[in-house]
Amino acid sequence: MSRVGEDWIFLILLGLVMALVSFVMDFCIALLLQAQKWMYGGLDSNVILQYLAWVTYPVVLISFSAGFTHIVAPQAAGSGIPEMKTILRGVVLKEYLTLKTFVAKVVGLTCALGSGLPLGKEGPFVHIASLCAALLCKFMSFFGGIYENESRNTEMLAAACAVGVGCCFAAPIGGVLFSIEVTSTFFAVRNYWRGFFAATFSAFIFRVLAVWNRDEETITALFKTRFRLDFPFDLQELPAFAVIGSVLLPLFSSRFHCLYRFRRLLYPALVTLLISTLSFPPGFGQFMAGQLTQKETLVSFFDNRTWTKQGMTEDFNYDSHSAAWKHPQANVFVILVIFIVMKFWMSALATTLPVPCGAFMPVFVIGAAFGRLVGESMAAWFPEGINTDGIIYPIVPGGYAVVGAAALSGAVTHTVSTAVIVFELTGQISHILPIMIAVILANAVAQSLQPSIYDSIIRIKKLPYLPELGWGHHEKYNIRVEDIMVRDVRYITLNSTYRDLHEILLIGNLKTVALVESAESMILLGSIERAQLQALLTQHLSRERRLEFIRDRADAERKRVSVVSTPSSEEGGQKVNHEIEEWEEQQLDEQVNFNSWKIDPAPFQLVERTSLHKTHTIFSLLGLDHAYVTSIGRLIGVVSLREVRVPVIEAVFQHHSSRLHVMCLLIVNHLFVRRWPVSETAAPVAPAAKAKPLSSTNCGIVTPASAFPENTSPTPPTRTRSLSDLRPTLASKHPPVFWRIRDCLDSVEAPPVCVYVCVFI
Amino acid sequence: MSRVGEDWIFLILLGLVMALVSFVMDFCIALLLQAQKWMYGGLDSNVILQYLAWVTYPVVLISFSAGFTHIVAPQAAGSGIPEMKTILRGVVLKEYLTLKTFVAKVVGLTCALGSGLPLGKEGPFVHIASLCAALLCKFMSFFGGIYENESRNTEMLAAACAVGVGCCFAAPIGGVLFSIEVTSTFFAVRNYWRGFFAATFSAFIFRVLAVWNRDEETITALFKTRFRLDFPFDLQELPAFAVIGSVLLPLFSSRFHCLYRFRRLLYPALVTLLISTLSFPPGFGQFMAGQLTQKETLVSFFDNRTWTKQGMTEDFNYDSHSAAWKHPQANVFVILVIFIVMKFWMSALATTLPVPCGAFMPVFVIGAAFGRLVGESMAAWFPEGINTDGIIYPIVPGGYAVVGAAALSGAVTHTVSTAVIVFELTGQISHILPIMIAVILANAVAQSLQPSIYDSIIRIKKLPYLPELGWGHHEKYNIRVEDIMVRDVRYITLNSTYRDLHEILLIGNLKTVALVESAESMILLGSIERAQLQALLTQHLSRERRLEFIRDRADAERKRVSVVSTPSSEEGGQKVNHEIEEWEEQQLDEQVNFNSWKIDPAPFQLVERTSLHKTHTIFSLLGLDHAYVTSIGRLIGVVSLREVRVPVIEAVFQHHSSRLHVMCLLIVNHLFVRRWPVSETAAPVAPAAKAKPLSSTNCGIVTPASAFPENTSPTPPTRTRSLSDLRPTLASKHPPVFWRIRDCLDSVEAPPVCVYVCVFI
Repeated sequence: MSRVGEDWIFLILLGLVMALVSFVMDFCIALLLQAQKWMYGGLDSNVILQYLAWVTYPVVLISFSAGFTHIVAPQAAGSGIPEMKTILRGVVLKEYLTLKTFVAKVVGLTCALGSGLPLGKEGPFVHIASLCAALLCKFMSFFGGIYENESRNTEMLAAACAVGVGCCFAAPIGGVLFSIEVTSTFFAVRNYWRGFFAATFSAFIFRVLAVWNRDEETITALFKTRFRLDFPFDLQELPAFAVIGSVLLPLFSSRFHCLYRFRRLLYPALVTLLISTLSFPPGFGQFMAGQLTQKETLVSFFDNRTWTKQGMTEDFNYDSHSAAWKHPQANVFVILVIFIVMKFWMSALATTLPVPCGAFMPVFVIGAAFGRLVGESMAAWFPEGINTDGIIYPIVPGGYAVVGAAALSGAVTHTVSTAVIVFELTGQISHILPIMIAVILANAVAQSLQPSIYDSIIRIKKLPYLPELGWGHHEKYNIRVEDIMVRDVRYITLNSTYRDLHEILLIGNLKTVALVESAESMILLGSIERAQLQALLTQHLSRERRLEFIRDRADAERKRVSVVSTPSSEEGGQKVNHEIEEWEEQQLDEQVNFNSWKIDPAPFQLVERTSLHKTHTIFSLLGLDHAYVTSIGRLIGVVSLREVRVPVIEAVFQHHSSRLHVMCLLIVNHLFVRRWPVSETAAPVAPAAKAKPLSSTNCGIVTPASAFPENTSPTPPTRTRSLSDLRPTLASKHPPVFWRIRDCLDSVEAPPVCVYVCVFI
Repeated sequence: MSRVGEDWIFLILLGLVMALVSFVMDFCIALLLQAQKWMYGGLDSNVILQYLAWVTYPVVLISFSAGFTHIVAPQAAGSGIPEMKTILRGVVLKEYLTLKTFVAKVVGLTCALGSGLPLGKEGPFVHIASLCAALLCKFMSFFGGIYENESRNTEMLAAACAVGVGCCFAAPIGGVLFSIEVTSTFFAVRNYWRGFFAATFSAFIFRVLAVWNRDEETITALFKTRFRLDFPFDLQELPAFAVIGSVLLPLFSSRFHCLYRFRRLLYPALVTLLISTLSFPPGFGQFMAGQLTQKETLVSFFDNRTWTKQGMTEDFNYDSHSAAWKHPQANVFVILVIFIVMKFWMSALATTLPVPCGAFMPVFVIGAAFGRLVGESMAAWFPEGINTDGIIYPIVPGGYAVVGAAALSGAVTHTVSTAVIVFELTGQISHILPIMIAVILANAVAQSLQPSIYDSIIRIKKLPYLPELGWGHHEKYNIRVEDIMVRDVRYITLNSTYRDLHEILLIGNLKTVALVESAESMILLGSIERAQLQALLTQHLSRERRLEFIRDRADAERKRVSVVSTPSSEEGGQKVNHEIEEWEEQQLDEQVNFNSWKIDPAPFQLVERTSLHKTHTIFSLLGLDHAYVTSIGRLIGVVSLREVRVPVIEAVFQHHSSRLHVMCLLIVNHLFVRRWPVSETAAPVAPAAKAKPLSSTNCGIVTPASAFPENTSPTPPTRTRSLSDLRPTLASKHPPVFWRIRDCLDSVEAPPVCVYVCVFI
């Protein structure tokens, strides 16, 4: 029972800390944004000076953010959701949950968002919350042993993801659901309350802080809408809502991730310069409401007044943010279209910056803009509103904006819980049915076109994540475990000596080592953790035992000395060294004593005929890292996450990749990347190797059993043409500067020639 | 890809059918309730006649419902959520998903709800939706083979549960979440969209039908509230909201299930008589708003006007339902308290009736009443409202009612998603934070006090469900698979004859039979389905082969006949019979031909040292029915769901059971149940047997490997004092008339003597 109590304490602490972090960050970001406005406003006498101020400010902030992140913890760059997805899958990514990363992420994110670029904070907040949870776990473990339990830590990380979304948007329910959809494959319902509890508490504190700070009168939603309640929307408006959700948007939004990950020295500064130049309010910015911050833009989109009744300008409150959408020369529709198009590529470009940033909020804003566009069109089409039973209700374009925001963000992230987030953000649930319909339609279209943005990043960063097996892939999987397993297993036997241990520790990479009865019988008895082997070996050759040996030797010597004459001290010293070495050799040849070992008597076993599909399910469900393959009790191989991933990834991404997509990747690569480490190895990867990717003939040639759980260094590239070449290399400690084109090539069936033509234009 | 298309079609059909069913049922229920009001109103000249009409009507309806359900399909009685939970766990409950059950459930539920008793429709709707899905699956399988896939059917059933809740309350999101929380242990996120899609579509159609029927102007929430949006509640009101969620309610609500399941001939009629007599409006009903239906009661509770400002009677619209709460002699507080107390036991009693009925809605109403009580108290305490920054906002007791409803229903069902259901029911999300806090607090208290209502029913009905392992139980589980496995495994060998098959088919109960190399080596090669063995055997002794044999024999005879004289035909007939028998015997002794067998080469294996905890996780995750236990490749036992359940159930229910609880159960049992099948067997179950429940000494004595998947007949009670006595017997086709007291006794540590004193008072 005391355990449950400590869970509660932990979750409350986590919620509290995250609410404080979120509040302080929001405060700082608001200050930074205000400072820019103040500078810009103060210099309105001179346009050139004004432009310089407008542009320099974000360039400095982004450069600082990029530099700081790069120096302190390069892992902090980017969203963080893909990494959390991988970590929750059971893979240990080193350096992703340290204090340094926390500092880099918080400072970097504050500066990045303060610059006013179209960047989001949702993804990074998930990462920050997880960092908080991991650090709290470490901190709490000073007080008691139970915080060292690994499965408990995973549960806490899952709760932390919910807290991250929850306190970012003050949306506890949506936060829990979004984090489940985005990070989990199989969700244990018993962990549900943890997320709810922590996210609610965090959202509550976050909003209470706003009340105490006199920002708000009482606890309300972040982007509160005031749509009429009596008659939120007419049935006849539904087709228009459905349009928002259907074909257009997901297609439109699909290629965000293409630009992900370019890190060059000047790159951040140049991108920032470009974006802020274009949004300079007296310049081009006047056609795209450049002076509004992201938050102000959203508030104006969700406004419940229509903009298109041109006759009634008194409706248009010029003090409010909506004024930005009114231009003497341009129609509101034109401005909205320009806004959507410009923001689209700006957001895509901005999210590739090597600073901590998310893509959710920019997508959300673009979706809201599109929804507003549809809504305003509807209002222009039916200026008097829609007639229902004699009563005429005018159209509320703000409602359309809400629907659009939910639909587009849902499509990009492949989630339906964005609908719930929207309800919580706006504090109104009256549009529930149109929003749900639009989100589901958008999801249906998006899921059939491309993997979600997070899955794409996982793929680009080559994180060791096991993708979901889709519906269509069942038939392909007549592959058996025996076709993919690594036959060259490291093992120790009951007769192993310490020297064998030593050798095993030098070579292997898996977390555990198999223990078999003998090298002949190969009957699997259990598995032992490497760390324990290491400890055993160290203990056997420990300083104490050495000293003891020396003492014993000295005693023996002394006895001998009393009889014979003493040799010179130098000679004696050499002799001692020699004897110690001899002693060590002798010790290494001793058989290991089994009594003090902690052996896992039931490591996970598969038989060689288990299908890949079954293996995939078991690995996903149980979060396994590896499983031994036995035949009639005899150890014959080992399957690690890596072996399971390869065929699965191939199938899944083959499904989504199109020739067009790869062309686009290549062109972009060509524009930004100078070095071509790929060209010399790309050619050998012939389509033939893919057609029969896992025949039993070529799967014997495998690199030593996968280094996934360690993830400290990239595996050295093997230069054979075998399967191991097709295997994605590891994401290194420092994420790769750019992804390998070879991987794109792998996933198309186009003859490589035409691709090369494109590359070398 | 065509598959995905068919999924969509299926889900749309399911949503459509359920929306229609829900709408038609609501319509009928409303008619039935109106009829009662009309009768009651028409007879207002004579109180006696009025009373008779008021009382006879529900008695007739409930009796009809009980009788109809009993005759057509007794499985239709009760909620259905516990059964769905068990079915989704992978257990086949026969007769639970048939057309007969569907008809019985729909007709029975309509009559039961039409009677005006405090019954709910949520649970039965989950069951009805699942029935719909199962029948649709069967229907669709006429058109294509893919609908026979079993795992797909389970996914569809999970979606159906969401549809059930979704179209019952027009709450798609809440429906999906509630169904996940209530029915799943591990949820596959890839099935998420199915539930959302179907539930949204269903809720949409359900509400559109209301609009078309001119009940509503447009699509809105079912119990729409109109609380102010600008300032939904004051921070200083939060403690009062928290009170609603905390200690009082869960304690109050805990013992619902005590009364569950008494089926006697006159019982339904008597209970109905009692309840309707007490709620007779001119009689005692005037003190508890007896004339209001459940729906009207809720509407009045959620009203945003206060009842306690006695000076402002003009506020009190006497036409509305709120008038029922105003009594010339009694205070509003007194009436609310009477309402809560009376409704509490009435609901508990009503849900024990053998008609299709749920407990969610009654609990929801009681919670709303309690919330209203707190809200009215607050309003009386601060008649002017609470002062914030100089602006005074009056208190909205309706908001408290919403909070109370969510908290109590959440506590009873152990879910947090009731909060979401409440948002969708009321169409307002402005009270999100108080509701979430109250629901979480209520859950925390309730979960530490008792299992959820559905788990209790599962336990009472002895459904083969594997309960969740709680946090506190890890330490206890030093039990290994070898301690609980059944050592007497049925197996066939490579040398088995058809006779062996025949014998195995006669005895065993598991769905599959193990195939081992030989009886000596016992090396497990795979498993074969019983159905296939049966088919093989039948084929081997098929009519065709018999005829062939006779033909061959006749040919041989004819040849012989040409040489020797013919015997008499009678003698010949006897001889033929004899020869056929001989042929059969000979055929049975033939070795089985392996080539035509479909063998599962990798049945799930555990080793004997696997801990119970790991076994539990694997069974829950993979929905296993049984797993073979191997030692160095040799088959040494089998563990089925049943063996895993016993120790788990003991631990979980020991945790929750209190002495008071059992006393209460026993007293109730004593009052209603005449037969005591328990007294003679209860005594032997000494606490000693529990203290060391699964030592390796007594687990050898086990009944043949579990009949769970079949669930056709109760296993004969074994009269030994061994472990098998402790094992819950199966839920029979006809649910047991009452639960066995022995089970209660098992779960207390009180000396049996004091319990017996209580029983035999």
